[in-house]
Amino acid sequence: MPELRKDPLTGQWVIIGTERPRRPEDFRAIHEARQVGACMLCEGHESETPPELLAYRPSGDGTPNRQGWRVRVVPNKFPALRVEGDLDRRGHGLYDLMNGVGAHELVIESPKHDETLATLSLAAIEDVVHAYQERMLDLRRDTRFRSVVIFKTAGRGIGPTLEHPHSQLLATPTLPTDLAQELVQARTYHEYRERCVFCDILNQETEEGRRIVAESEHVVAFAPFAARAPFETWLMPRRHTAGYEQVKAVERRDLARTLRSVLHRLHALLEGAPFGLVVHSAPFAESEAPYFHWHIEIAPRVVVPGVLAAGSGFPMNPLPPEDAARFLRRDEA
Amino acid sequence: MPELRKDPLTGQWVIIGTERPRRPEDFRAIHEARQVGACMLCEGHESETPPELLAYRPSGDGTPNRQGWRVRVVPNKFPALRVEGDLDRRGHGLYDLMNGVGAHELVIESPKHDETLATLSLAAIEDVVHAYQERMLDLRRDTRFRSVVIFKTAGRGIGPTLEHPHSQLLATPTLPTDLAQELVQARTYHEYRERCVFCDILNQETEEGRRIVAESEHVVAFAPFAARAPFETWLMPRRHTAGYEQVKAVERRDLARTLRSVLHRLHALLEGAPFGLVVHSAPFAESEAPYFHWHIEIAPRVVVPGVLAAGSGFPMNPLPPEDAARFLRRDEA
Repeated sequence: MPELRKDPLTGQWVIIGTERPRRPEDFRAIHEARQVGACMLCEGHESETPPELLAYRPSGDGTPNRQGWRVRVVPNKFPALRVEGDLDRRGHGLYDLMNGVGAHELVIESPKHDETLATLSLAAIEDVVHAYQERMLDLRRDTRFRSVVIFKTAGRGIGPTLEHPHSQLLATPTLPTDLAQELVQARTYHEYRERCVFCDILNQETEEGRRIVAESEHVVAFAPFAARAPFETWLMPRRHTAGYEQVKAVERRDLARTLRSVLHRLHALLEGAPFGLVVHSAPFAESEAPYFHWHIEIAPRVVVPGVLAAGSGFPMNPLPPEDAARFLRRDEA
Repeated sequence: MPELRKDPLTGQWVIIGTERPRRPEDFRAIHEARQVGACMLCEGHESETPPELLAYRPSGDGTPNRQGWRVRVVPNKFPALRVEGDLDRRGHGLYDLMNGVGAHELVIESPKHDETLATLSLAAIEDVVHAYQERMLDLRRDTRFRSVVIFKTAGRGIGPTLEHPHSQLLATPTLPTDLAQELVQARTYHEYRERCVFCDILNQETEEGRRIVAESEHVVAFAPFAARAPFETWLMPRRHTAGYEQVKAVERRDLARTLRSVLHRLHALLEGAPFGLVVHSAPFAESEAPYFHWHIEIAPRVVVPGVLAAGSGFPMNPLPPEDAARFLRRDEA
């Protein structure tokens, strides 16, 4: 059973694998992990994954774990956390830990190996963001889980050992540090101003316009004021909604459209640089909170020439977000 | 002038470069930046750096910016922050920002290009950690600066464009996020228990012994309980001291010895994998605080096979720190 251990200095929960014994030589070479053999996420290999949790098939075909799906969600065969078992929160001297209980699922975004989220059709992206919602609605019924984080990395050299287009979903008994930090800030802002900081950001961004990347009826995409890296882009729904699982059908459609537009713009500008995408959604218990607002953060992994190395604690971004947004909008220079 | 901008959602201050205009093509290819031409940090090239701020030379030789030094500190020729100018804290709508004022210095650890911190003599490492202290003592007199972070990356593929062994020092008008977070946790712990969380950690670690990597009279090196990555190692002084600038000569000697031992162990085990090193020291105003305790965090950058990709907000470490410490101590398996 993996463990969740809390760092007493940062408050951060870390997943410590305790199952596979590792030797130092396993960690030595910096290399790009490459997939070998057939891909178990491809259509036709349904029997190689754990049984599916959700799939979208042509109406009328209700047989699971067979070909013909558009999007398919399965438990991760090598999960970071285990879905069986009790939490068993406990102390060890001054330290805090609990069993590594959680759900770790893969949202397979396409039956085809060589697609990417950016190349999918609008309808297919809509299926993906719909699957996110359906899985969250299911997982929130498990009282052991406090929140769900959905994230993906796409492109070479930034980690994923599976090349097939997919997102990961992690339901956890404690909050990921990034979300916990956002909640603290958002609550503090709301206490002081009695307004949602995200709604205020949306208002200022749409009014100012300089950092807007793309706008639609329900969703706004923009470069954040304190972007940590060049071309970082956030997507936010105009309607105040804390939990992503509360998204409406019209908003999903608009989200898919805006997401596709942003990915196309990034792809064109950065020639397919890898990127990370994270859905920030309120913890289940706060899914109707007045202070939180779900959103998606996209961070391309680009080279930043001649810049402060990581470690200072200060992200250093040589490209002002106003310029990044201008490039992404394809304004005349 | 660069800007320091605060992310209203995380509280994180980000350095936004506003000086060199950048085009999207500058960020496209993922490549390793390589040094071209002669190295300006090498002995004999003293005139190519900005004038030195500190250097250790054989006693009697007080002429600056000439050959014959052992350790040399110079302003960064391409600083992330500018040392001239006023802070000018201000708001922009709901956002907060200030001028990018700060000191960005390079501690050149050796006159020789091909050394690394791990290959330096004990006396040379002692010079390095002494230079850290002397620069902090000097910088704390500048009332614009609240704290200093010292950090280095060593090895290929993790950022530094300068290959010559060096550390970076950044004095800033605001706190780096990592330090700010630690301070919050440490204060909360102290309020509740009226003890220093770092002292408590030291007590538990030395008593338990399982995560100890190396011990000396004044300094303890151990794998932290919630290590975020395989072989992460922290060094802490036994004496409660919040600010690194308060380190004593005997402690510096012992720190150099323990640091060297840890770097040798990591090098042997991981065949020279790159690593990052960060000195966490209390902000100047809190350099005698009862709740903070300076320490050094070393994180080797190793491959972590088949593991949760970044983005979940949960660091995932497949190697329990107890095992890492055992390997580093070279216990019989």
